[in-house]
Amino acid sequence: MEILEIIKNIKPLNLEYQAKAKNYLDNLTKPIGSLGELENIFIKLAGIYETLDFDISKKNILIFCADNGVVEENVSCCPKVYTKIVTENFTKGITAINKLSEFANNDITIIDIGVDGAFDNPQILNHKIAYGTKNFTKEPAMTYDECIKAILVGFNLVKELSAQGYKMFGTGEMGIGNTTTSAAIASVLLELPVEKVTGKGAGLDEEGFKNKIKTIEKGITQNKPDKNNPLDVLHKLGGFDIAGMVGAYLGAAFFKVPIVIDGVISAAAALVAFKLNPLTKDYMIASHLSAESAAKYILEYIGLHPILNLNLRLGEGSGCPLAFNVIDAGIYTLKNMASMDEAKLNKSVYVDIRK
Amino acid sequence: MEILEIIKNIKPLNLEYQAKAKNYLDNLTKPIGSLGELENIFIKLAGIYETLDFDISKKNILIFCADNGVVEENVSCCPKVYTKIVTENFTKGITAINKLSEFANNDITIIDIGVDGAFDNPQILNHKIAYGTKNFTKEPAMTYDECIKAILVGFNLVKELSAQGYKMFGTGEMGIGNTTTSAAIASVLLELPVEKVTGKGAGLDEEGFKNKIKTIEKGITQNKPDKNNPLDVLHKLGGFDIAGMVGAYLGAAFFKVPIVIDGVISAAAALVAFKLNPLTKDYMIASHLSAESAAKYILEYIGLHPILNLNLRLGEGSGCPLAFNVIDAGIYTLKNMASMDEAKLNKSVYVDIRK
Repeated sequence: MEILEIIKNIKPLNLEYQAKAKNYLDNLTKPIGSLGELENIFIKLAGIYETLDFDISKKNILIFCADNGVVEENVSCCPKVYTKIVTENFTKGITAINKLSEFANNDITIIDIGVDGAFDNPQILNHKIAYGTKNFTKEPAMTYDECIKAILVGFNLVKELSAQGYKMFGTGEMGIGNTTTSAAIASVLLELPVEKVTGKGAGLDEEGFKNKIKTIEKGITQNKPDKNNPLDVLHKLGGFDIAGMVGAYLGAAFFKVPIVIDGVISAAAALVAFKLNPLTKDYMIASHLSAESAAKYILEYIGLHPILNLNLRLGEGSGCPLAFNVIDAGIYTLKNMASMDEAKLNKSVYVDIRK
Repeated sequence: MEILEIIKNIKPLNLEYQAKAKNYLDNLTKPIGSLGELENIFIKLAGIYETLDFDISKKNILIFCADNGVVEENVSCCPKVYTKIVTENFTKGITAINKLSEFANNDITIIDIGVDGAFDNPQILNHKIAYGTKNFTKEPAMTYDECIKAILVGFNLVKELSAQGYKMFGTGEMGIGNTTTSAAIASVLLELPVEKVTGKGAGLDEEGFKNKIKTIEKGITQNKPDKNNPLDVLHKLGGFDIAGMVGAYLGAAFFKVPIVIDGVISAAAALVAFKLNPLTKDYMIASHLSAESAAKYILEYIGLHPILNLNLRLGEGSGCPLAFNVIDAGIYTLKNMASMDEAKLNKSVYVDIRK
């Protein structure tokens, strides 16, 4: 399917089922709206699935792994080879995302969308576009065509996995240098100064942090991305991981399945998808507020409320299983608690004070 | 035990085990500190339990139920009898806290510490101090002695239940009018204007909200509580539920077991405990940032970071099982993920950028 066809065929949520959900929730034994974001998520899911009787037990986190040419500029404390090592580690079940996913009982899908190195591992899906992107301080990170190909990888994965019965997705990534590419995208698309949206990533010292800001500024000056054209910004400054996630968000909205955002890199991809079509927002759930500064600006811009505040800055998709625990708890509770009538209370005493 | 003896015998956390925990975490396969608050909670628990090999599977939420005389002043949208009805409902397994607790696999303890009505129900522990407090616009809510008795109820419950093997507690409450008593306490102890710390509770309209503020101001003027004496403030403006929770926080610190704070009423009690002895903070974990405005000011004052941000305003202890899910996931992950060595990474590349 053509990318423009995908973008223009995303549909809004079903208002009728959202109203039905709100009516159902307002008759449960609690002050109206008092379960806050848990209720908002329930209403969102009803609007997505077009039923109040949805089942979200099958969930999958898509982890897009790719290298970034810009690491030549020493923007990360980690050697580039960590992308490959950690991608392999995901298949060994030893990383944080493996353990968080075991606890939350979700599956993970590990995708090589552009790691600089070859894998001989059936647990890593081979969708490699190239052996890493180019250094954006010298040339565009990707060609436009590579970028579109990467987007379609994410889109098609959501298509296939939702056909297999997955009812909720999460986004994750592994790629040394990807807080740099994320900050570059956020700076251009949000029209904010680079230093405002740049963080220290995995653990840069002060000198490294200053160099990171300068490198991003150089990349923007070099590439002159068109802030009104998200795909221009993405292919010039992004990474294959981010492009794959953009495709996942587009796919989630297109195939009507909710998708949970992890940290700042996932949020940068969500921002691109939102700029391509604001309706994608209706299918997104923000898991947590990352310690990387751009995350806050991006989520506020999109208008999403992160449900966790843990100062995480790991990536890997780690916020998603944590959010799944909370979402599962909320949905279980809202589906099973008693009505006002059953609880011998009267709904009419409560004023709806939701903002 | 005498209350002053309890207060002065609270001990700080074990620094040696906190350092051991930090060293352990810094060698796991992730950037140093990148699991944020999950790591801070792990370190706190190691300091409390004096081991890195702790088991937090057995958890209990103490739900203190009591009526407040000040509801005569129409400070709540709900009739007073809702305290009794909902307290009974907790025993039927039909409320939000029941379902959230089923999901998180924690127990709950339902305590009548001052409901205006008699129960004939073995699932409700009878620790009734009186049939509700007095109207604080006319006289102190409790006598000083009643207040101490209520504190000791909470203290002794933590003592008994931790002897039974419970390794983590949560605080909850049910009591029409208790966002009013909480705001009154917060206003005096934080020295903030009443309108800044008062919310609309379960669902007050604008007129009711203005009346609530005036009523609290009247109560403060009438009782002249000594802001430097937390027990004076508590007995004059608080409720039996809040006093019981103060005792639970003191008990948790005294018997060295962590305790999770729910919403604004639980936070008001935590503030009193913190004012009695700031070391109590070391045993507290803030579950969520309540939609009631005082919660933010209280948690910032104590210096606690709420891990969830769900705009909840239900009470019942509802934030605690939600936080338990996240804490359990975090501890499971930090206990079971690989070390840097096992993951073939090198710790030395990362700078510790925690603030």
